[in-house]
Parts: sequence; C-alpha cells; structure tokens
Amino acid sequence: MFNSLIQLREKMREQGIDAYLVYMTDEHMSEYVGESDFDIRFLTGFTGTNAVCLVTEEESLLWTDGRYYIQAEKEMADSGTSLMRDGSEGVPKVSEYLRTLAEKKKKSGAGAPFVFGFDGKKVSVSLLRKYEKALKGTDAVLKSDIDLISEIWTDRPAKTCSKIFVLEDKYSGKSYEKKLKDLRKHMKEEDSKAFILTDLTDIAWLFNMRADDIPCTPVFYAYSTITRKTTFLYVQKNALSAKVKKYLEENDVKVRDYQDVYVDAKKIHDQNVIIDPDSVNTALYFALGGESPLVPDETSEKLLDVETLPEEAEDGENVLAVDKLEDDGKAKNIIKIDKLPKKAKKAEKILTVEKLADKESQNNTFIEEINFTTTEKTVKNETEIENTKKAHLIDAVAMCKFLYQIKCEINVEDYDEYSIAQMLDKLRAKGEGFIELSFDTIAAYGENAALMHYTATKEKKSHLQKKGFLLVDSGGTYYTGTTDITRTIALGELTDEEKHDFTLVLKAAMRLKRAKFPDGVSGQNLDILSRGFMWDLGLDYRCGTGHGVGHISNVHEGPNAFRYRIGETPMTKAYPLKPGMITTDEPGLYYEGGYGIRTENELLCVKDEHTEYGQFYSFENLTLVPIDKDAIIPSMLTDEERRELNAYHARVYEKVSPLLTKKEAKWLKEATSAI
Amino acid sequence: MFNSLIQLREKMREQGIDAYLVYMTDEHMSEYVGESDFDIRFLTGFTGTNAVCLVTEEESLLWTDGRYYIQAEKEMADSGTSLMRDGSEGVPKVSEYLRTLAEKKKKSGAGAPFVFGFDGKKVSVSLLRKYEKALKGTDAVLKSDIDLISEIWTDRPAKTCSKIFVLEDKYSGKSYEKKLKDLRKHMKEEDSKAFILTDLTDIAWLFNMRADDIPCTPVFYAYSTITRKTTFLYVQKNALSAKVKKYLEENDVKVRDYQDVYVDAKKIHDQNVIIDPDSVNTALYFALGGESPLVPDETSEKLLDVETLPEEAEDGENVLAVDKLEDDGKAKNIIKIDKLPKKAKKAEKILTVEKLADKESQNNTFIEEINFTTTEKTVKNETEIENTKKAHLIDAVAMCKFLYQIKCEINVEDYDEYSIAQMLDKLRAKGEGFIELSFDTIAAYGENAALMHYTATKEKKSHLQKKGFLLVDSGGTYYTGTTDITRTIALGELTDEEKHDFTLVLKAAMRLKRAKFPDGVSGQNLDILSRGFMWDLGLDYRCGTGHGVGHISNVHEGPNAFRYRIGETPMTKAYPLKPGMITTDEPGLYYEGGYGIRTENELLCVKDEHTEYGQFYSFENLTLVPIDKDAIIPSMLTDEERRELNAYHARVYEKVSPLLTKKEAKWLKEATSAI
Repeated sequence: MFNSLIQLREKMREQGIDAYLVYMTDEHMSEYVGESDFDIRFLTGFTGTNAVCLVTEEESLLWTDGRYYIQAEKEMADSGTSLMRDGSEGVPKVSEYLRTLAEKKKKSGAGAPFVFGFDGKKVSVSLLRKYEKALKGTDAVLKSDIDLISEIWTDRPAKTCSKIFVLEDKYSGKSYEKKLKDLRKHMKEEDSKAFILTDLTDIAWLFNMRADDIPCTPVFYAYSTITRKTTFLYVQKNALSAKVKKYLEENDVKVRDYQDVYVDAKKIHDQNVIIDPDSVNTALYFALGGESPLVPDETSEKLLDVETLPEEAEDGENVLAVDKLEDDGKAKNIIKIDKLPKKAKKAEKILTVEKLADKESQNNTFIEEINFTTTEKTVKNETEIENTKKAHLIDAVAMCKFLYQIKCEINVEDYDEYSIAQMLDKLRAKGEGFIELSFDTIAAYGENAALMHYTATKEKKSHLQKKGFLLVDSGGTYYTGTTDITRTIALGELTDEEKHDFTLVLKAAMRLKRAKFPDGVSGQNLDILSRGFMWDLGLDYRCGTGHGVGHISNVHEGPNAFRYRIGETPMTKAYPLKPGMITTDEPGLYYEGGYGIRTENELLCVKDEHTEYGQFYSFENLTLVPIDKDAIIPSMLTDEERRELNAYHARVYEKVSPLLTKKEAKWLKEATSAI
Repeated sequence: MFNSLIQLREKMREQGIDAYLVYMTDEHMSEYVGESDFDIRFLTGFTGTNAVCLVTEEESLLWTDGRYYIQAEKEMADSGTSLMRDGSEGVPKVSEYLRTLAEKKKKSGAGAPFVFGFDGKKVSVSLLRKYEKALKGTDAVLKSDIDLISEIWTDRPAKTCSKIFVLEDKYSGKSYEKKLKDLRKHMKEEDSKAFILTDLTDIAWLFNMRADDIPCTPVFYAYSTITRKTTFLYVQKNALSAKVKKYLEENDVKVRDYQDVYVDAKKIHDQNVIIDPDSVNTALYFALGGESPLVPDETSEKLLDVETLPEEAEDGENVLAVDKLEDDGKAKNIIKIDKLPKKAKKAEKILTVEKLADKESQNNTFIEEINFTTTEKTVKNETEIENTKKAHLIDAVAMCKFLYQIKCEINVEDYDEYSIAQMLDKLRAKGEGFIELSFDTIAAYGENAALMHYTATKEKKSHLQKKGFLLVDSGGTYYTGTTDITRTIALGELTDEEKHDFTLVLKAAMRLKRAKFPDGVSGQNLDILSRGFMWDLGLDYRCGTGHGVGHISNVHEGPNAFRYRIGETPMTKAYPLKPGMITTDEPGLYYEGGYGIRTENELLCVKDEHTEYGQFYSFENLTLVPIDKDAIIPSMLTDEERRELNAYHARVYEKVSPLLTKKEAKWLKEATSAI
C-alpha cells in the first residue's frame, strides 16, 4: 500500500472525515493539467487523464473510463487502490456510491452525520449539484475548504509560470477592447454587474494573450472578474513581461495576484453574479456567497448556545433575532438581519446580537449560464477562419509527407508506434508558425487502435507490420490556428471486414459533411447522420462524433459538438450550430482485440441558401489530406458518395501538391485520383 | 368594435391595469377546450384553437399561428382586435411586446409601474417564467388573481359536467392501486410528500376514469393532490354516479369539490411539492406558496407604515422584525419570523408584530419536473398495446372502406370537403367500441391542404375535383385505444411535381420508420431522418414530424415526439424513447396557394437486438392503411424503400382484407400490390 494513502487516512481521521475525494483536474477544470495537479498519480500511481478517487477508512476506489481499465489495473497494482470500471454495467457512479456510504452510516446508528470532503477548488459547481442531488434526503455533510493531499504531498511541484505573450490582432481578429465591450453589453442585458471567469481558454481568448502553463493548451493560470467599469486579472505576476504589463495597463486591466480572487470574491455582494457552473469551482462559488444544502451554516451552528451571546451589540453590527428557546436553552431558529437597528441595544436578550465575522450573507444572486466568452469564442471571426485555412494547409503538408513516407519510402517494419509518431511530430514541427502539438500524437497499430485514446510510449509500444491498419490521430497549434486530424492507414493487406468497416466509417463521415439544415439546429440533431450507419448494424462508438475545435487554444472546445446525448449543464445541453463554428467529424469503429478505424476531418459551418423556411447552413471541409483509397470498397459507395469523395480528393491535390516535392506530388496525384 | 372589448377596457381602468391578456385554454392547460372557456371568441370573434389576446387602452392584438392568419383576419374584421402573425418574420412575441410596453411606460415618466394582468388559472407556471424573463429589469407588476372576462361575460356557459365512468382493467391494463403505488415510490425518491396533479389526461389515466367534459378528449374536469397516505380528487360532484363513488371509496380516494383545491393548496406548508410547470397554473402555484418577482409581496407593502402596527402582539401570533426605519418613518426591510417568541411582547415598537392574515409563508420547496404520471402514461402497457393494435385494425377498416368509396364508387365531384369528411366519420362511428373522433376530421382539397390544420365547415368548404390531392387527417377513440392517420389521396390526374413531392414525403416517413437506435436516444435525435429530405432541398414543414399518441385520451400526448427543437421546459426538452411509446410519423410538404401532402402512420417503439453497445430499439408500424400508389414515382425509391413499402402493403392486405366486402377486398389487393 502506498504511503500516501496511509497518510491521507490519518489526516481524514484527524478531521473527522468519512470519505475523501481526489480528482484529476485543476482549479480551472482544465482538460489537460500540469504536474502540480497530479494528485491522483501521487495517491494511486495511475497516470491516465480521467479519474476520481474515493478514499474511506476501509477502501480506496478509483473510477476511470474504458480507455484506461487495463492501464489502471497495472499502475495501481500495489497502491491499495482498486479500480471501478466507470461506465460498465453494474458499476455505481461516484455519486451513487457516496449515497450508499451515507445511508450505511445512518443505518449503523453512529448518530453523527456522514462527512465527506474534497478540495473545493477541484470540483465544479455542476459536479457539486450532482452530489447534492444524489445525497438528497441523507444527512451527509460536505467539507470542501480543505486540501488533504497538499498536507501530505510535501514536495508537490510548483505551478508552471511560463511567460505570457500578446496575440496580435492579425491573429486574433478582434481586439480585447471590442470583446470586452460585447461582454459588458451582455452583462447589461442580464442585469449583472459581476462576471466571473475561470476557464483558462476563455481568459486567453478574451485578453488575446497566450502562454505555455499547461500541456497542449497555450494558456496561462489566471482568473478574471469583470464589472461594468473594471476588469481584474488574477495572474502569477512573474508571468508578465514589461511588454505584457504595458499592454494590460493600456487596456485598463487591474492586475492582482493569482489567488487573490478568493479574497476579492468575498467582497462581492448584492449583485447578480454571472457564473458558468461547469467551469467555476466550488471554493470560488462559496467565496462568492454561494450555498449548498450539503454545507450547514456554520454561523448558526456556533450560535446555537444563546447563553454565550453578548446581550448588547454595537450600533451597526450584525444582529440575529432568535425566535424561540428550547427547554435546554438552545435556540431553535435563528434569523439574520443585515444591520443592527439603533434601538436594538435595548432589546431583550432573546433578540440578541453577535458580530458575524466571516459569514455575512453576501446576498448575491447567481445567473448560471454558459460563459458568454465561450459561446463568442467558438464562433470564429473572419481573420480566424482565414488563418485556420492556412493552418490546415500547413498541417496537410506535414500529413501528406508523412503518408508518402509510409506508403512509398520507409519499410514500416523498421518502425513502431512510438517512432512513427515521432516522425510525424518532426514533420509537423517544421510548419510555419508552429507552436506546439495540439495533443500527444496517437499512433496505434492493429488492436491498439481499438483503445480509442491509446498513446504509445518509449517503453510500451507495438511494432508495425505490413498488414492491417495504423490509426494516427494528431494535430498542431500554429499562430494561424489549431488542427485535429485522424487518418487510418492501410500498411499492407487488409481483410474484407477491415475494408468493409473502413468504407462504412467513410460513408458515415461523408453523410454528416453533406448535412444542410436551418438556423436553430444543434449537433444533437445531426449526430445520427454519421452514427446511424453504426446503429443500423447494432454497432456504435463510445464517444461523440465530433467536438468543437479551439483557435490557438484547447483542441477540444464547446459547446458545439456532434453527439446524441443532450445534457442538463450549460456545456452539455444542445447548442445551435452557427456559421464560423468548427467541429470535427470523426466517426469510427473499434473492435477490442481486433482493430480500430477512425476518419476525422474538421468541418466549418457556413451559410447556405436562404429560403422561405429561413437561413440554411451547411459544412465546408477544412482538412486537406487524402483518405486511404487502398481501404475503400468502391461498390459500397453510392454515386453521390463517390462524387463527393472524388471532389474532395481533387481539392486536396490542387491545394497541397504545389507545396510538396515532385515525388510526393506524384504519389498524391495517385492517392487522390478519382475512383 | 365589440362591446366586450369596450367593457373589458372599462374594467381595466377601474383596476388600474395597463395591459390584460386573454388565452385560448382552460385551467388545466388543455389543448381542446369546452365552450365555457371560449374567452377569446367572446372578446374577439376568433374561433381558432390557438390564440393570445393582449388588450391595452389603445390596442387589442391577437397572436395566432400561420394556420389561422386568413381565418382570424376575417373573423375579427369588426371586432376592434388586430392580428399579430405569430411566427412571421419581424412579429414580436407576446412577451417581447409586453416588455416594449413596460419600457414605454417607464420612459413616459408616468411614475407608476407598468401593471399587466391575466386570469392566473389560464397561465402555466412555465409561461409565467417566460414573462418573468422577458420583463427582467423593468418595473412591471402582475395582477393574476383577477378574471375580467368573467366580470363582463355574464352569460358564460357553465362547465360541462358529464358522467364519469370507470375504465375496467381489461382496457387500462393497470389498476389505480398499482399506479398510485408507483407514484408514491417516486415521491419517496424525490423526498416529497405532496404531488399536485392538474393535467386532465393524467388524472384520467391515474384513476382509470373517463368522461366527456372536453371535445375529442374523453376526460373530466378535476384536480388531484396526493400525499404519502391520502389521495384527494377535486371533481364536480354531479359527475359521480353511485358506482363511481363506490369505486373511489373502495380505493380510499377523498373526494372534494372541484374548486376546493385552491383552498386546500394554501394549507400545504413545509413540503417538497412536486409540480409540472407546464401544466400547473399560476393561480394554483401561488396558492401553494409559489412566488414571482412580478408579484410584489403584498404583506410587506401593507406594512410599510410601521406606525400603524400594534405595539404588542399575542403570544403565538406571527411576528415581523423590522430592522431599520427610514427618515420618513417607513420600514426598509421587513423580516418575518414564523412564530412570536414569548418575550417579544416586551420588545421595542420597532421590533413589532402583526397577525399575518393570508400571506403566511408556506415555506414549500417546489420540485419542478414533468409529471411522473405523464411519463408513465406514455409508455403503454401490454394490455394497452394489444388493444391499440385492435383499435388500428378497426380504424383501418373504416379508412379502407372510405378509400374504396373514393377510388371506385362515388363521383368525387358530387362531394365537398365537408360531406366527404362526414362520410368518413360515419364509417368510423360504426367501429366496435367507438367512443368519439379523436379530433375533428381534416379533409382538405387542393390548396386548402397547404393550411396544415384546416377544417372545412358546412359554410366554408371546397368542392372536390377529379384531379390533385385530397388530404384526410383523422382518427377515432375506441375502448381499445386512440388512432391518428393521414392519407393524401390522388383524386385523378397529378402533376409531376405533385408525384415527386408525394414520393419524397413517403421516403421521409419510411426512413424514420427504419430507425434503429440504442436506449437513451430521443425524438430530437431522429427527427432529421425524415425532415432531412426536405432540408436538403431548402424546404421544411412548420411542425414536428410526429407527436405521442394518448390511449383513450388526447390524441396528442408527450413527452415523446419527433421534432428537432430542444426546449427548456419539462414537456419540450428531449425525452428518451422507450418501448411502449407510440408516436406518429407524419412528414409533409405544403405550398401556399398550391397543395399540401402529408402521410402519417403511428409507430410503436419496440425492443430490437441487445449488443455490446446496449439495448437497441426500433419501430413497428401500427397503422394498416394503404398509401396511394397512384401518386408514387417508383424510380425515386431505392431498392430498400421499395421492399419496405411492398412488405407494408402486403401486411395491410393480410390484416384488413378479411374484414372487408369482396369488392372492397378486391380493390385493396390492387391498392397493396407490389411495385
């Protein structure tokens, strides 16, 4: 058993905590997190990107999804933590398990409530709500103003603090000033004077600044609060060069220390505060005066013994009116009044007063909605679109050179998944304005490709063979934009099944691309166009058909997406597609122990015709890389599909061939010839 | 100008109301309403089924949808009310218009707030929320405890009070006792002890009782409140026969007078009250202690003058603690404490007391969700499914006889839309266990069919000709179930466009029927399978592709539906399809001034295969009536579509022909022969 687990349990006993939860995220709910937030790895040894660990005196359980079952089992072998196969039949959700624990303790007759805890900075308001719902009717109590991992992880790495740079208007397409003006207009419409921003990609977008604090996402640690007149940016001050400081000064941004947002939040009162519950963490929510039925009012608790209250209070202090004493001298109901009335000094002891040090009601009302910045950010402006097209061309050159190497130059048997990915990464890094990979390149051969987010390492990799499929999912962030592309490549002979499934996936991807739809339609309405090909055969892929793509930002972005589930939170519920949104189109088929196929292009939503039924939209393909004809069964394609594929390939050749060597261009001509 | 409008404005002036709203619904938000609720007709002369009228001193405006533009203009010609073409470009919504009025009054410097009113019994909580949202930030005040129409409509008809009958278990498939048990289990899970039921079809379903209070819906006026131990049914007592009384007694149902629900609601306090905001009206919501920012707290208002308050109060009375006096002697904040503490008698005048007659806070928490009864009701049980299939066979016989008459016997030129509908109604009425039409038969010829919900009358009708399309949308409610079917019938020669469009609609309907999908998928995910055929051509139909169908109930039922819009209210948001749900599949094409085509079958959701991706579902066709082959262009059908159509027709012949005359069966054989 890991020492960290033993130490955590000691801390839990000290603080009277029955269950403690640890998460794989940071205080901004980032998808990719830095080493300073590897709490899960410290506690369990597990290195995957999605995990929740629940520790009690008796058990330590880690929930992760199907991508990581095998890896988690191996990595946690001696840790004392066991795997909960999240998403598998019969496996309870974390919130359901919490409820079971709470009910068990109640039944045991312990008398005390079930106390569970987590670091409130690692849990979003939306997740808190999920726990509230699951624990309704139990007597569970939450302690969230603690961070037990920090207490025991004495050599936790410091947060990265990379240098921030300003993204010029020629890249952003819209100045900070204009973005802020639109935001304040929205705040006015919502009758709000306080907008709280915690999502790092939204902050980077709003301020037109970037950095390198987090892997694969060119952003920096920060919070921001915006009022009608003032903008505060909470940031690690060492990240600011003189140039950036000047930029912020010129733009009237008040710079404060990164963690001061928690201090300042407590000073916000009597406001309609706009927050995005999917990204604002619980600690900040509480600092803003937010409440939870899981967190009893500590002030009330402390004041239960009325006898200890002072009989008089100073003018202007806070006053409590206690309405009834129980026989034992405890007050039953305590009702707070904001300010002490002048004459209350003479009031009876039962209408008594106390200075409320830190629990004064802030009286804020929360407007919970998806960040205005998120929905603005995801609709790319003309500059961003134009630049993105350049990025895709740059990226396509790297990809075509890579495909040419595989198809014509190298002996694939000399390569493994790791070294072939390195080859691609090097080609991509040569692209103009390259900043970083948009995510770790996935190169998965054969059955490894069935693990949807498999990443080979130097130590753990498969060698390539002259048969079957190599699936390569990769992308880059350039000054002109961020890309994401998957190609499944035939390395030699294929079985009929492999060809059939490849063609089916291609048909699915092309059908979604052909969609035409009026304003108001969301990705949830369109998902079946791709996925329906699989459903018709009783098959499916366990992920969305596509995700929004950031611009010099996280490659995964919302709220636009192609998926069929319609959630309840701002980011997961249906959101209409608008011209300027970029979404991937990546259906697939995955057979455990067999093979995996995925074909991914990026689609730009564009205006189509306007009829009496309104404005119609359709999609433009941004990706410019051939789809492997060696794996296609032409007879499975309809005439319409064949025409579409040929037109796509002709465009790829036209755009990319001038940027290749003669040999490469010759190969591309064949690879894109009509079928 | 109508006298009713003049009188209404008098009443508005008397009560200081700037704008008054009148609705076409009843206090249960029923779709079809009785004469006693024809407020709109009384005020404006308009007889359509969807309308909101907004009256101010200067204007009277009626919003209705595209189905009724022409009719409304005609009917309201001399009424003093003008048409607002709801849904047309540039026409503001009612709520937007209210906001404009409120802002206009504020700008005018009148000093007083904008006061608008409506009968709270005619407005759902969901609609109230829409107004709250639209009026946020204005100083608009709502008066909803008034019914100005009743004050001037002195000869308003009494509510229908038909005799209630009990639906035997052989028809309902599940006893009231069992349904109630499931409901109470749900209440327990939600930690609620008070369930409020106002939807008439839900009440009819829960109690297994039916009647004839409302046109086309075999239900009775009633409310019900259910606690963990007691069930109250609020009903017109004259509707109860001795037999029904006995049934209710045996089932421990406490019967109370219909309107007593509003009295009893006020007695519910300190509960988690479950309501469906789409069906519970505002008056009942307020009676339950619900609040609205549009309704200022009257008690506080009355008590603003502290000087008038008694200095002492009786022990046990309610107490108000006033925290601060303004210079003018008015109290700024008033905070209520539930019960008077014993020693408060001696408190200072500023902490003073008053008996709160009718505005005691009930301290209820509302759980707002779609009625549990609605979601249970819409999943038909085995008995209901088996019976529904019988109903469809009975209905198909009437429809086939009707089609035979049109195609082989009568000279259609001798008929008009009204008389042809009567012919069908008579045939349908002969069906075994026929109760009533499930809605007024729509028989629309030529361009009239482009008005989607056109109904011909004795006075207003078109004569049939030996060319073009007759669209017939109709259905019946039998003891075995409720049906809904549309067929578009070629009366003679058709243009190529007509045939093309008919075939396109058929393809659309068949594609949706072929859908196969896993658990969790909703109608919003599937809608595009039909509608996509239209969207691809820049066309659309301005309605859902299909609606849920009630069982011996309203033919329109939710939450299951095929549509693409995903709403925010319980009834409009996405709801997963489940085996046992019945939904219509009725795409169409409508050309104003041209023609209209709709083909409608009912689809039963059934279990399909179970794979590693979960349980799949698909659809079974319940409707058994041929689709007019005279209007199909066979070359437009794929092989798959042709096979599907032929198989469907073969099944129609097999099931229906034995119940027809020889002549009819002969015609059916040809009408269902393979193409």
